[in-house]
Amino acid sequence: MTIILAGVIRIDPERRAELRPHLRAQMEASRQEPGCLDFALTEDPLDPGVIRVFEHFADKAALEHHQGTPHMATWRAACAALGTYGRDLSSFDVSDYRKI
Amino acid sequence: MTIILAGVIRIDPERRAELRPHLRAQMEASRQEPGCLDFALTEDPLDPGVIRVFEHFADKAALEHHQGTPHMATWRAACAALGTYGRDLSSFDVSDYRKI
Repeated sequence: MTIILAGVIRIDPERRAELRPHLRAQMEASRQEPGCLDFALTEDPLDPGVIRVFEHFADKAALEHHQGTPHMATWRAACAALGTYGRDLSSFDVSDYRKI
Repeated sequence: MTIILAGVIRIDPERRAELRPHLRAQMEASRQEPGCLDFALTEDPLDPGVIRVFEHFADKAALEHHQGTPHMATWRAACAALGTYGRDLSSFDVSDYRKI
């Protein structure tokens, strides 16, 4: 069983440009982790205050590894410094998946 | 069990601006469907040729309804007209999910 984390975080739209380098750095570093199957932080086209989160990990150990990485700490610090709020994320238990 | 569809489609970065109104229209219409729990089409921050797809449906019937809607036909036609390619989507069977 794999794990998806998905949902949104919110930011003042006027601070979005400051967040972009951090989004990219977090994506680049996370995608290099063992057990990280996919990872994206993207801007919602309908709401400039919404950042979309999509993370797919091979298992709970991979997710726990991710949460303890130095780049995760850097990302959390950037979010705190830029005042992100409204974190609304869910964890999905994936029993099977396939290309369509 | 709910269903997530997620992955990417690709587009010539020079045609991305033309695709944006269609991304937004498809998101707005799809989010109104019964059984559509979440729906986002977003631009990848690392690759200007990649559009990220995330769709969460309550069940197979909701997904099938989505696939037969007029806005889905409009979206497919827009993708064809703008030459999207490299569709790489997976269907995920979700056995359980929870807010975190």
